[in-house]
Amino acid sequence: MDPAEGALQRFADVVGRQHALTDPDQQLPYLREWRDRYFGRAAMVLRPGSTLEVARIMEIASDTGIGVVPQGGNTGLVGGQIPSEAGTQVVISLTRLNRVRTIDAVGGSMIVEAGVTLAKAQEVAEEADRLFPLSLASQESCDIGGVLATNAGGVNVLAYGNARNLALGLEVVLADGQIWDGLRTLKKDNTGYDLRDLFIGSEGTLGIITAAALKLLPRPREKATALVAIPDLDQALKLFRLAEARAHSGLTAFELMSRLAIDLVVRHVADTRLPLSKPSPWYALLEVSSPDVEGAASRTLEGVLTEASEQGLISDGVLAASLAQANSLWHLRESASEAQKPEGGSIKHDISVPIARIPDFVRRAEPLVEAICPGARPVVFGHFGDGNLHYNVSQPPGMDKARYLSLWGRMSEAVHDLVSRMGGSISAEHGIGQMKRGELVRFKSDVEIDLMRRIKATLDPKGILNPGKVL
Amino acid sequence: MDPAEGALQRFADVVGRQHALTDPDQQLPYLREWRDRYFGRAAMVLRPGSTLEVARIMEIASDTGIGVVPQGGNTGLVGGQIPSEAGTQVVISLTRLNRVRTIDAVGGSMIVEAGVTLAKAQEVAEEADRLFPLSLASQESCDIGGVLATNAGGVNVLAYGNARNLALGLEVVLADGQIWDGLRTLKKDNTGYDLRDLFIGSEGTLGIITAAALKLLPRPREKATALVAIPDLDQALKLFRLAEARAHSGLTAFELMSRLAIDLVVRHVADTRLPLSKPSPWYALLEVSSPDVEGAASRTLEGVLTEASEQGLISDGVLAASLAQANSLWHLRESASEAQKPEGGSIKHDISVPIARIPDFVRRAEPLVEAICPGARPVVFGHFGDGNLHYNVSQPPGMDKARYLSLWGRMSEAVHDLVSRMGGSISAEHGIGQMKRGELVRFKSDVEIDLMRRIKATLDPKGILNPGKVL
Repeated sequence: MDPAEGALQRFADVVGRQHALTDPDQQLPYLREWRDRYFGRAAMVLRPGSTLEVARIMEIASDTGIGVVPQGGNTGLVGGQIPSEAGTQVVISLTRLNRVRTIDAVGGSMIVEAGVTLAKAQEVAEEADRLFPLSLASQESCDIGGVLATNAGGVNVLAYGNARNLALGLEVVLADGQIWDGLRTLKKDNTGYDLRDLFIGSEGTLGIITAAALKLLPRPREKATALVAIPDLDQALKLFRLAEARAHSGLTAFELMSRLAIDLVVRHVADTRLPLSKPSPWYALLEVSSPDVEGAASRTLEGVLTEASEQGLISDGVLAASLAQANSLWHLRESASEAQKPEGGSIKHDISVPIARIPDFVRRAEPLVEAICPGARPVVFGHFGDGNLHYNVSQPPGMDKARYLSLWGRMSEAVHDLVSRMGGSISAEHGIGQMKRGELVRFKSDVEIDLMRRIKATLDPKGILNPGKVL
Repeated sequence: MDPAEGALQRFADVVGRQHALTDPDQQLPYLREWRDRYFGRAAMVLRPGSTLEVARIMEIASDTGIGVVPQGGNTGLVGGQIPSEAGTQVVISLTRLNRVRTIDAVGGSMIVEAGVTLAKAQEVAEEADRLFPLSLASQESCDIGGVLATNAGGVNVLAYGNARNLALGLEVVLADGQIWDGLRTLKKDNTGYDLRDLFIGSEGTLGIITAAALKLLPRPREKATALVAIPDLDQALKLFRLAEARAHSGLTAFELMSRLAIDLVVRHVADTRLPLSKPSPWYALLEVSSPDVEGAASRTLEGVLTEASEQGLISDGVLAASLAQANSLWHLRESASEAQKPEGGSIKHDISVPIARIPDFVRRAEPLVEAICPGARPVVFGHFGDGNLHYNVSQPPGMDKARYLSLWGRMSEAVHDLVSRMGGSISAEHGIGQMKRGELVRFKSDVEIDLMRRIKATLDPKGILNPGKVL
């Protein structure tokens, strides 16, 4: 028996045979990324049922030098959750760690395990008349461990922050199998280094998050939602400033869509239509939330639209008159990704720049894209209020998809170079994973890469935690 | 010439003779903590004028193994900014790095150097019609480098977070003199490890913050302020829930004061009076802020007081009718620390517990204190909404001050033990410094202490950054 095989036997002993998957069919869902962009192989897929089992797995991994790939709901977009193709790594799926351990509605916190889905966490909060605001397209599948490991964002970041801002504490299994119990539920705690934020966003390369203490907030009592037509991006910026000035943190969403983004949704997604009289170069979806139950949210948003109209910032707009209408406005925005599929290949960028530079970024990116692939079509949408755009570029109609996608490297290099020159980020919310590892080194200073490598070497000296990801 | 002397000459060459203080009188303000609790000695006090000079100082320090103590406005409360008594360390005062580098009002960020005072940062933001919300008693003296190095809190944490939540990026000089330029002004950036938050709150033991990119927020257009009388702490908790439910993030302060805390203010601080008809066991100061200019803040707060009164949560209350009245209510709260001085010795604790446990904490702490020093008087006040109390205990009237203060260790041990049993923190906002170093080791797990030590050893292998602090 070779040493690796001995280790696999020990892994199986920890989790039990039925949770140590070696059958290729059983393994498949853990090895394939949902868009089929990443596919790996694994010596074993382990489904531990407790933090202690995760710890014992890491002890064995540390002992034997076997690389482990932590995986949540397998919804990541940069290949961080997929093992290498060598077949020597093991996947640790955290989905069986799915208990809600405690909830403190009065204090505004709950402790949940890594495998609790985001949707479930939202539900549990709601049952306690509280809000867990993180909200993503993949929320039915993605889980708390994954959203924290990748510091996920989504549509509610503007008012509530990303995953990092919503975590009070963590439980983490370290590379050598030790368990760090950092499950504090405190709003303020200045006792030593901020280990929590070091693990959050480290994509499983520094430790495995097994549970988290999450913040719970008061639930908004009313929301008002509007879709507006905007002549150009400079007006969008002014509209954002205006809405922010009138609603402050009550402005819970300011999402942008280009004309093409919304055209593709209306063309390809069932039960969608543009609820405005005529098309516009740009659209924004605004949401105002309020603790008030007597229409303050609607009055504020109406006021914003009136002022915006008077100032010529918007050419048209519709304020949802019912929850159903609000949902259908949101549906337009949330279908933006999916609507690109029928148009063939799409080269995707998840970038951020300082908000005031968004108009300039979009203007300058277009000729770069056109130079690399004449006729390629930017489908621009995203979280304008956070400075975060999904700058996706659909292929020219009729072009061969594979040939188009072969331009990915060149195009994203050009877009990322521009982003970097504008003080932006090449990964605003999706992380680095496998996909942007090369790009990371291109844009970070040597000092920063060196700092990261030193931290990695300190916390994972044998390099067994999610090898080949991030760094 | 001994090696240390050679190093001192090199330090002086970097900053210029007039900024390399060796004269004891000139050094004094940098060696003595303002309450006279900590006093150190220094081989030299260096006042660099640029990040590059700080970097060159660290190169020399790294070369020669000389310990450096970074210092901001010298307002810290745990001795973190004061050198040891050996006289072998050098102090680096950052106060000459006081430029505002850039301000982006539209994008909501500014880049300021470490030596810019907090008050100045607030002013600069206000001139751009923006809010930098961090607010502390020492804001005229403390500086941005210091508030970030200690992750300072203060009275606006409830709605806006502590210093950590208000920083977008940092510039840091590392132990070996390398400069990490992490001055990003982005709201979202998921590219690698969160180095920013590792340096924030590390009290100068991992690197020297020389500049920061700070968040700017919209300025509230109206504020409403009230002082209410509360029969007991269980009612205070209910009142907090009610106010939070009605105002959400518009609730910008919920500060607590015990009867004794306010009695001492009225007794010892000029131009103060209790604006209620009769005394009460507890008081809370509530502030609601709003973007609205037509009285929404006042209406919301009035509504809260009416409901609270109907539910028996408060026995009396006054809503400020003018800015002057609001200021005088705040003055009562802000004088709570100072008002303890004329009462003799005070043994101070800066603790936090989950908010729902505050009433229980106060009930259980009292007999512990009484057992150690019969007649000692808890003066309880603090940031109730953050779960953070300044649980200060004034000496019994007439007792010898030094004898009372000799009980500090025993009393704080008992209080901290209780805090720890309740899942709380022994330093909610002041940090560890010299003062709580021993306590830190008592309450953190071996795993956590070990993680911190490994990170310290990685970023400061020679142990020259603020030696003897935190760890």
